[in-house]
Amino acid sequence: MSVSDPVANLQALIRCPSVTPAEGGALSALEAMLTPLGFVVERMVASEPGTPDIENLYGRLGTEGPHLMFAGHTDVVPTGDEASWTHPPFAAAIDGDMLYGRGAVDMKGGIACFVAAVARHIEKHGPPKGSISFLITGDEEGPAVNGTEKLLKWAADKGERWDACLVGEPTNPDQLGDMIKIGRRGSVSGRVTVHGIQGHAAYPHLADNPVRGLLPLAQALMDPPFDGGTPEFPASNLEVTSVDVGNLATNVIPAKATFTFNIRFNDTWTADSVKAEILRRLEMAAASSPLRPNREPVRFEVVWAERPSHVFLTRNNGLIASLSGAVESVTGKTPALSTTGGTSDARFIKDYCPVVEFGLVGQTMHMIDERVALADLETLTQIYGTFISRWFDNALLS
Amino acid sequence: MSVSDPVANLQALIRCPSVTPAEGGALSALEAMLTPLGFVVERMVASEPGTPDIENLYGRLGTEGPHLMFAGHTDVVPTGDEASWTHPPFAAAIDGDMLYGRGAVDMKGGIACFVAAVARHIEKHGPPKGSISFLITGDEEGPAVNGTEKLLKWAADKGERWDACLVGEPTNPDQLGDMIKIGRRGSVSGRVTVHGIQGHAAYPHLADNPVRGLLPLAQALMDPPFDGGTPEFPASNLEVTSVDVGNLATNVIPAKATFTFNIRFNDTWTADSVKAEILRRLEMAAASSPLRPNREPVRFEVVWAERPSHVFLTRNNGLIASLSGAVESVTGKTPALSTTGGTSDARFIKDYCPVVEFGLVGQTMHMIDERVALADLETLTQIYGTFISRWFDNALLS
Ligand SMILES: [Zn+2]
Ligand SMILES: [Zn+2]
Repeated sequence: MSVSDPVANLQALIRCPSVTPAEGGALSALEAMLTPLGFVVERMVASEPGTPDIENLYGRLGTEGPHLMFAGHTDVVPTGDEASWTHPPFAAAIDGDMLYGRGAVDMKGGIACFVAAVARHIEKHGPPKGSISFLITGDEEGPAVNGTEKLLKWAADKGERWDACLVGEPTNPDQLGDMIKIGRRGSVSGRVTVHGIQGHAAYPHLADNPVRGLLPLAQALMDPPFDGGTPEFPASNLEVTSVDVGNLATNVIPAKATFTFNIRFNDTWTADSVKAEILRRLEMAAASSPLRPNREPVRFEVVWAERPSHVFLTRNNGLIASLSGAVESVTGKTPALSTTGGTSDARFIKDYCPVVEFGLVGQTMHMIDERVALADLETLTQIYGTFISRWFDNALLS
Repeated sequence: MSVSDPVANLQALIRCPSVTPAEGGALSALEAMLTPLGFVVERMVASEPGTPDIENLYGRLGTEGPHLMFAGHTDVVPTGDEASWTHPPFAAAIDGDMLYGRGAVDMKGGIACFVAAVARHIEKHGPPKGSISFLITGDEEGPAVNGTEKLLKWAADKGERWDACLVGEPTNPDQLGDMIKIGRRGSVSGRVTVHGIQGHAAYPHLADNPVRGLLPLAQALMDPPFDGGTPEFPASNLEVTSVDVGNLATNVIPAKATFTFNIRFNDTWTADSVKAEILRRLEMAAASSPLRPNREPVRFEVVWAERPSHVFLTRNNGLIASLSGAVESVTGKTPALSTTGGTSDARFIKDYCPVVEFGLVGQTMHMIDERVALADLETLTQIYGTFISRWFDNALLS
């Protein structure tokens, strides 16, 4: 069976119900596509106490440099209410010019197109003048503890080195060709607990209401803005995502109050410097808004969420130009070079080689009736194919 | 058996486990004390869909005016961990000069003393020159739906009229004689829900974080103070008692956020005017702190808790002077005339006749090892007896 048809590839992948942490047959289906093309495929199971074991896949075609990596994930988010889908989420039904299914755009579609692009490249030009590898995890939508990060380290420990990476996540807001991601903001989360003294609402002088302390602390994190943005990045933005006291008795002043926050920060900051700024704001607000006049500063503590996402920006012009040029030559559109949006596994890859991201249109990702235009699958395959040619040409020149 | 001994009366009442809504034999024990003194006792069961039926008691001695009511409750709060009590909570054990038991001060003790005071009055002076009645509920510590409010209406519908009322709740903070309550602040509670638009924390421009709206709304209710107090009342005070979003996903901006509040307000306000002021503050804050620049005011709604407690102040000088003079002549202390603290069933009684409150020392109420000094029971009996004499003398003069 030829794997140069992205539609057939994608249907095979969608029909594997690989909701994180289940492999669901998806990596085996991918392995069955790669092996006939000459890839040496390894399966790597990652484990960590307290999380499910996760299957991952690493396949390489070629033994020499330059070495181009394609990275992504076969796991998908849950379907939601299956009855609400126009077509069953794992049926890969084609309806008119659309292909329906969970993972269609995020991101089995990207994998299906890159496999087809490599197959066509080999058909037309023979094996690449270097190496191409697939680094595919089954743990991107879940805790992401047993996924790309461990797979990269495992491969690097075996001596694997890469010169560039393309991540196939859906990066286009509206139309194929809109946007390449060349960096991502960092992300830090935490929980602040404000301590007061419990008491009866009728005797407030015997109590200290922690909500009085919480309000200015939360306000101090949201205002003023952390920065105004940088040439490559939008402004950093902090949101207080929850406030929780859980006091059901309206005549009781509670003992403590908590809030959680998340900041998406740009390259003005590092994870450490943004944490220091958050602490500085909290301490200043606590000192200037004591619970009672002439009192001690508000007593609070911060617990940081594990594993902040570090900010990164790819400055490898050859990589960016190869991808951008491929998009432009196939679609006629000049893609925006963006650093917006959430984090992705590119945050792990950037420690090993320059990384960019480009894939399908993300509009239906994670939703009921996730779907992709058949025409987009063909176009993305052509873009990926052009990118492969251009990148190897450029890498061999320099 | 004589009922002129408050200690024996209180032991009989404590041994009835009358945790709300259980009658526990407590009203029957009281009936057994009142009937021999000549009281005509009726038991009234109050019902309301969704709440347990509650037994109440009304007993009257005499048929003419002036008519003095003693009001209170035989129900008690739960014991908490019984093993933590020095003596079992329903054993009424005497240990040294203290009597232990749930309800010892709140407020079976007050009832026991008033029964003893009436018994001694009859022994010494014969029946009162008018009427004395006991209006005792079994639903003060619970929802208070089937208690004093319904019992008053039931009695009034039968033609009962009263000239004054003494509520026997524990009013003294430290020592017997400290404090008479001549009024109570009102209490209004509510819940504010602030509506935003849910979204991903990485795309804040597509969302509206309701926490951004909540903070200034909550702040506007707590500051500035509603008033500076009045000659008879402390300052009104509002506490935000809970804030709840319940968002567990740190990368998600929630759709809505809620907070609850409770205000204890003085006679600057009525329940209606204080609600109007709260709405005014919320609307002003909502208009001046839109979620985004140049946006609509913050969308919010308020749900008021059922049944606000109305503020009241007793201005009947004869009643206050009779009680205050009795306290002073027995204890040598001039009691403070106070309006502090929580609400009580006096808020219902004030619609029928002037009402004051005086009872035991409240320090151990609702706690493990609730207890009363035997000496306080004797002193309170003497105060109540002196009050009865002085009140009838005063009422007959005027
Ligand atoms: Zn994805
Ligand atoms: Zn009570």
